[in-house]
Amino acid sequence: MSETETLASYVLNGRFEDIPDDVRHEAARSLVNYLGCAIGAAPDAALDIAIRALSPYSGPPTASVLGRAERLDPLHASLMNGISSHLYDFDDTTPQNYIHPTSPVASALFAYASTMPLSGRDFVNAFVLGFEVESRVGNAVFPAHYDAGWHITGTAGVFGAAAAIGKLLGLTRQQMVWAIGLAATQAAGLREMFGSMGKPFHPGRSAQNGYTAALLAQQGFTAGERSIEGARGFAVVQAAAGHDLSKIGADLGTDFNLRRNTYKPYPCGIVNHPTIDGAIQLHDAHGLGAGSVRAVRLTVAPLVLDLCNQKDLTRGLQGKFSVYHNAAIGLVRGRAGLDEYTDDAVNDAEVRRVREATIATGDAALTEDQAVVEAELADGRTLRVFVEQSLGNINKPLSDHQLDDKFRAQAVRAIPAAQADAALALCWQVAELPDVRELVIASVPAGPGIVPGGRPGADLQAAGSARSGG
Amino acid sequence: MSETETLASYVLNGRFEDIPDDVRHEAARSLVNYLGCAIGAAPDAALDIAIRALSPYSGPPTASVLGRAERLDPLHASLMNGISSHLYDFDDTTPQNYIHPTSPVASALFAYASTMPLSGRDFVNAFVLGFEVESRVGNAVFPAHYDAGWHITGTAGVFGAAAAIGKLLGLTRQQMVWAIGLAATQAAGLREMFGSMGKPFHPGRSAQNGYTAALLAQQGFTAGERSIEGARGFAVVQAAAGHDLSKIGADLGTDFNLRRNTYKPYPCGIVNHPTIDGAIQLHDAHGLGAGSVRAVRLTVAPLVLDLCNQKDLTRGLQGKFSVYHNAAIGLVRGRAGLDEYTDDAVNDAEVRRVREATIATGDAALTEDQAVVEAELADGRTLRVFVEQSLGNINKPLSDHQLDDKFRAQAVRAIPAAQADAALALCWQVAELPDVRELVIASVPAGPGIVPGGRPGADLQAAGSARSGG
Repeated sequence: MSETETLASYVLNGRFEDIPDDVRHEAARSLVNYLGCAIGAAPDAALDIAIRALSPYSGPPTASVLGRAERLDPLHASLMNGISSHLYDFDDTTPQNYIHPTSPVASALFAYASTMPLSGRDFVNAFVLGFEVESRVGNAVFPAHYDAGWHITGTAGVFGAAAAIGKLLGLTRQQMVWAIGLAATQAAGLREMFGSMGKPFHPGRSAQNGYTAALLAQQGFTAGERSIEGARGFAVVQAAAGHDLSKIGADLGTDFNLRRNTYKPYPCGIVNHPTIDGAIQLHDAHGLGAGSVRAVRLTVAPLVLDLCNQKDLTRGLQGKFSVYHNAAIGLVRGRAGLDEYTDDAVNDAEVRRVREATIATGDAALTEDQAVVEAELADGRTLRVFVEQSLGNINKPLSDHQLDDKFRAQAVRAIPAAQADAALALCWQVAELPDVRELVIASVPAGPGIVPGGRPGADLQAAGSARSGG
Repeated sequence: MSETETLASYVLNGRFEDIPDDVRHEAARSLVNYLGCAIGAAPDAALDIAIRALSPYSGPPTASVLGRAERLDPLHASLMNGISSHLYDFDDTTPQNYIHPTSPVASALFAYASTMPLSGRDFVNAFVLGFEVESRVGNAVFPAHYDAGWHITGTAGVFGAAAAIGKLLGLTRQQMVWAIGLAATQAAGLREMFGSMGKPFHPGRSAQNGYTAALLAQQGFTAGERSIEGARGFAVVQAAAGHDLSKIGADLGTDFNLRRNTYKPYPCGIVNHPTIDGAIQLHDAHGLGAGSVRAVRLTVAPLVLDLCNQKDLTRGLQGKFSVYHNAAIGLVRGRAGLDEYTDDAVNDAEVRRVREATIATGDAALTEDQAVVEAELADGRTLRVFVEQSLGNINKPLSDHQLDDKFRAQAVRAIPAAQADAALALCWQVAELPDVRELVIASVPAGPGIVPGGRPGADLQAAGSARSGG
């Protein structure tokens, strides 16, 4: 069997019953982490812009946008969910391939699930299958593909979304092969977009395009049959000689890449996390603040400088990809929350001063979970800390309670605290929900939104009532 | 100025008055050729499928689909126009970069122009500017990009569509840079799709995605500023070391790539054309027919075997990319029209017999416009012809009258002959039309289409009436 056929068969045959308990729990953790990100960033101006630009082109508004009052067609809702969930770079990461895996898959699934009754079992099953397809396609081309400049979340993501929606649509084997093909031929997303809204656009478009691929295949729109492994297929075109197709089928159905998902404590490029940990440790241990720090020397893995070497910043989004900014906020403020990546934060005089007084050196002896932070203080002292394992990495994961806190801190930006708690509780038990729309209702604020349309969630109330009565 | 800024400025400053007469005439030829292809293929099952799959997700049906009675939102109409115009591989080609250039740009423009009054001057100006952007982006990455497996019509096309729609939307310079960036980060399309509906999907999606990029940029959705030339930008990511950015600005505004556009006499991969010419010459000169030919030997440029080396065919679309099939139809039928690329034609017993008795050898001494066709006949004779310049190539272009004939032969598949003549006459004078909707009306059949919706072209009648009264 070709790799394309292997993945198609896997998706067709995958059953909820066959997902081990630990993987089910990790799916819930991934969805809790995702949903907090999607709801929390939904009020951002980037979403206002995207909705204002595209809602005039939306089909009948049968789908909810997480964290927003507007309703759109499910393809546009997929796009918006994808943009918001990745907007603050606070979503999950699989370290083995650098994919932010949940956004492309869950963004399409939540849009789909908001339009009709769907059991939590089917939802979680489709999510796990889509996640595996996406991650394994990524494994096959990583790292050559990423090194070449592709934003792998965009390119691998569209496969995952197509597989997940294709599963729910009940595609035949031939249709699933075509859906994968139409996904492959839409795989896109350049790392040149990092630091702009173009970056979160990638998982959004992946979700939307994968969903579209499944819809087209369902009606018989054909595609190449060997879209992944063919001589002009995804693997060779987007990774040249640097691909390894054997990684697609390895342990498929017995192991799950989902087991190795990680969740960020800080909303920025993950390679900055050990630097932030070290900076916060110094801040807390020595009571640092404005004026304390004269100069900073960082020693980091070489990749950090490849990804996050910008120092001249004006926009909050840029701060997420500046190791200098991240050292500065840790040392000056002792935290790295959403408020540390606003335009105000990157333009804050003290943060800017410390950022400009920071230098960074790459050292191949350090892993990407490690950093040395050395701060020269105004009082003449020099402080130094070595971070061996950054918080949130695969060996030091966020606990379920830390995920609860992270969810709440984000969700309350869009919905009342009590509603956020209700959404959180429902999300942990998503696999048991008779109708996922109950969770969708809890994830959407009241009000008309910026774009006039049907009453938000009007026809969803029925689903919610049915549940509370059952 | 960066290459991205150079293109943005070119589009912002480009005026119809500055387009030389010969380029205006070539624009009309390109649009006549395009429109015939789009109308003629519109009744195909591929369009039925795409419309059935996606019309439930269409926004308000303010736009016409060329050759179809259904109306959709302009983004979906762009997609459908792109699919139909490239479906039979009968649209144009710029030999310097292998792009089929008009489809991505004009598919978006006709969708846009169907929704509101737009003068022919503005329409043609946007077309010429979008064409140049697309072609120059292609020049910068060709041939490495194409050789790597990219369908350059899809990847370069999205830039052209974004530029053309961005021009009509009146984007600022900053917005145009973002539109180009959002186009760059959607550039996609694998050659692995050749022989399936995935191939015409590429210019369709390019048109739709470029249009979307312009709409988002207009509202302030940001993108990387150096999307073409940046370290992780389009050129390096999609052509590695094989790019040459100097080709983007070379002679920009003084020369026009549009001058070097070519139009196909046969609806199949252009590299098969000299083989077809030779086969038809032998057929006509010697009265060949069923049973005449025992075996065939072709000598062709090596690229032909790279692109069109399949012999085991079951679908009509595959025939377009089989040099064996193309030799067979020329020898057996003496023609290569749309009817020679149906499922029936590739499965025709006599065509199949001759195809299977054909061998092809690559010879680097031949150009892609040349071929040697040698036929061994049942009566023992061996015929041989050398084609030095295939019909339709840049040195032997189709005349305006040949384009008329080509237009009519296609358009009558979707609309009555008198209406086709009217559309043809309007298209030749498109730059003089006060409202391009007059041409759109002439390009759309009566009837409800397969998808229920508003009365086809209802609100367009006003534009037509106004014109005939003026």
